Amino acid sequence: MNYTCLQKDPGSSARAGLITTDHGTIETPAFMPVGTAGAVKALHIHELREDVQAQIMLSNTYHLYLRPGVEIVNMAGGLHKFNGWSRPILTDSGGYQIYSLSDIRKFTEDGVVFKSHIDGSKHYFTPEKAMDVQRSLGADIMMAFDECTPYPCDYDYAKQSMDLTHRWLDRCMTRFAETECPHGYKQALFPIVQGSVYTDLRVKSAEYIAGKNAEGNAIGGLSVGEPAEMMYEMTDLICHILPQDRPRYLMGVGTPANILESIALGIDMFDCVMPTRNGRNGMLFTRDGIMNIKNERWKDDFSPIEPEGDVFADREYSRAYLRHLYVSKEITASMVATMHNLGFYMWLMKEARSHILDGSFADWKNIMVKKLMKRL
Amino acid sequence: MNYTCLQKDPGSSARAGLITTDHGTIETPAFMPVGTAGAVKALHIHELREDVQAQIMLSNTYHLYLRPGVEIVNMAGGLHKFNGWSRPILTDSGGYQIYSLSDIRKFTEDGVVFKSHIDGSKHYFTPEKAMDVQRSLGADIMMAFDECTPYPCDYDYAKQSMDLTHRWLDRCMTRFAETECPHGYKQALFPIVQGSVYTDLRVKSAEYIAGKNAEGNAIGGLSVGEPAEMMYEMTDLICHILPQDRPRYLMGVGTPANILESIALGIDMFDCVMPTRNGRNGMLFTRDGIMNIKNERWKDDFSPIEPEGDVFADREYSRAYLRHLYVSKEITASMVATMHNLGFYMWLMKEARSHILDGSFADWKNIMVKKLMKRL
Repeated sequence: MNYTCLQKDPGSSARAGLITTDHGTIETPAFMPVGTAGAVKALHIHELREDVQAQIMLSNTYHLYLRPGVEIVNMAGGLHKFNGWSRPILTDSGGYQIYSLSDIRKFTEDGVVFKSHIDGSKHYFTPEKAMDVQRSLGADIMMAFDECTPYPCDYDYAKQSMDLTHRWLDRCMTRFAETECPHGYKQALFPIVQGSVYTDLRVKSAEYIAGKNAEGNAIGGLSVGEPAEMMYEMTDLICHILPQDRPRYLMGVGTPANILESIALGIDMFDCVMPTRNGRNGMLFTRDGIMNIKNERWKDDFSPIEPEGDVFADREYSRAYLRHLYVSKEITASMVATMHNLGFYMWLMKEARSHILDGSFADWKNIMVKKLMKRL
Repeated sequence: MNYTCLQKDPGSSARAGLITTDHGTIETPAFMPVGTAGAVKALHIHELREDVQAQIMLSNTYHLYLRPGVEIVNMAGGLHKFNGWSRPILTDSGGYQIYSLSDIRKFTEDGVVFKSHIDGSKHYFTPEKAMDVQRSLGADIMMAFDECTPYPCDYDYAKQSMDLTHRWLDRCMTRFAETECPHGYKQALFPIVQGSVYTDLRVKSAEYIAGKNAEGNAIGGLSVGEPAEMMYEMTDLICHILPQDRPRYLMGVGTPANILESIALGIDMFDCVMPTRNGRNGMLFTRDGIMNIKNERWKDDFSPIEPEGDVFADREYSRAYLRHLYVSKEITASMVATMHNLGFYMWLMKEARSHILDGSFADWKNIMVKKLMKRL
């Protein structure tokens, strides 16, 4: 994996760059659509490629490990072969879902025993196991096995947890160095900065991670319920410490406004279920603000969802018809909204990038942030 | 509407023809995908047009009348404008769903008072109302308001019901003759033969309907639970009575084998929820037989769903991956199976038509019927 910074914005810490992997190039800042079980919900793989034009997708190790199981994905020749997505993939470590979805039975220095949220079966994850599983899945970018602290979180727990995350990182890096991708291409490993909302912990963690000289670095434990201002403050602090010449990934963020603000602070990569999950619930992000398409007010609005939009769903479906699909609980409603919202997120990243490249990002961002969060 | 018979099969009563409407031409025999609420579930409109290549879709008056309501579809300029499907549409009369889904409160010579299955609201349908609603929806082919008898059904009830269906047909035709499509194009009205599984009733009904000189004729009240042999016997009988120079539509049929057998008896048009509904439940119709894609046996079969298939879903998804999507309850599973099954039904109709055109239908049909119903 290789990162090149092409341009820095004069009015902010935003940067435009390129990440190259064995499965192709990613223009940054980049948004990664979430394909939990290897598939972005309600979207065909070719739609993700040709309509949404995503350059990288994210998948969840926890889900794939439980279903269909690592063995099946490995037999297929890795996740790219299994799901037919030939561009870059990032997998998380499984940690976040173990904490948020499963029933944890035992938590030790060595690892975590947990029960599957699907069938109650018992499993054991360690930093080494997280590496082995991600090697088999074959994502271009693998994530270190960490503990993501909730918000709020008391100082002592945050510190203890951060220290454990650091020790687990060392074990991840050792295992990563000893192994190879069984599918014959290169994989990168990103460590994760933790430390909750405590400045000294975040500084300490960022310095620890920066010292590892990884191919890219991530910020975890934010966007977990803390006020947005606190998230920006931590992100800003950390971006000043993490290496300039490596991509920075802010995990699980966020709204269009969160993303633009975080780009301004120096973030290059994002993922979030918001465009897909909220889309399935009728929330559409548009260039003029947010629509709840289920509202009565759209029932006889026969204009296209987003007349200037990039994807076919924006122009081929009217607001009234999409509302009808929601009210009638048609699967197609989720398909249209997912396509639209991801198309919008991709448009937003492309616009952000072009404003960074021509040096006009900061002013544009300030106007857009207000506009995008308006309720229509 | 205009029907031209291009070729009759020497070995059966099968025929290949063309139906022309103001929204385009339909090659017969034709299968009409069912878009209950104006949308084929789990399929984009452009996929129905460009991938599945359907030439006509069916929509349900009952569902559209309740949601979004006739007023909204009318304001949009008719169903074609509302849902973006610019090719021919057929709407049923609402009768079948009133009997099967709603709670009937009062049934008289004049019409039916029923309660919506959605919100319990009370509605009144008459033959005249069914015409008015279908005029507003603007389908190219409208259906007469009939009573579809269940199976089994005693002789007296079947006779009574058939006589009512005939009287209602006369009222439908009167109203139809007095009105026009508000959207400025031509609509046709198909009467429906009833009479359950009683030969004398079916003969009487077919003769009554044949006497109406309608632009096309339908057979209702079959495929409601009776043995297939009984359905074929009735269909054969009726096809010998209905006019040769008008298309014949067998409502609600059926499996690939049912369709091929009915084509051999002289049927030109079909509709059925089977490819879509059964697809959503994991049942795939293929050229080699029927797959239950949820079965364990597909878990490591990385070959395409249907290697020679016409639609992208056939070739871009493996059986193992599609099984994984089902097991993980992903919406995408329904999308892939719907696309595949409709693609298969369209392929089957195209093949049938080309075998009729070259005079080899009967032999081909006998081989295919055995093959298509095999469980894989």
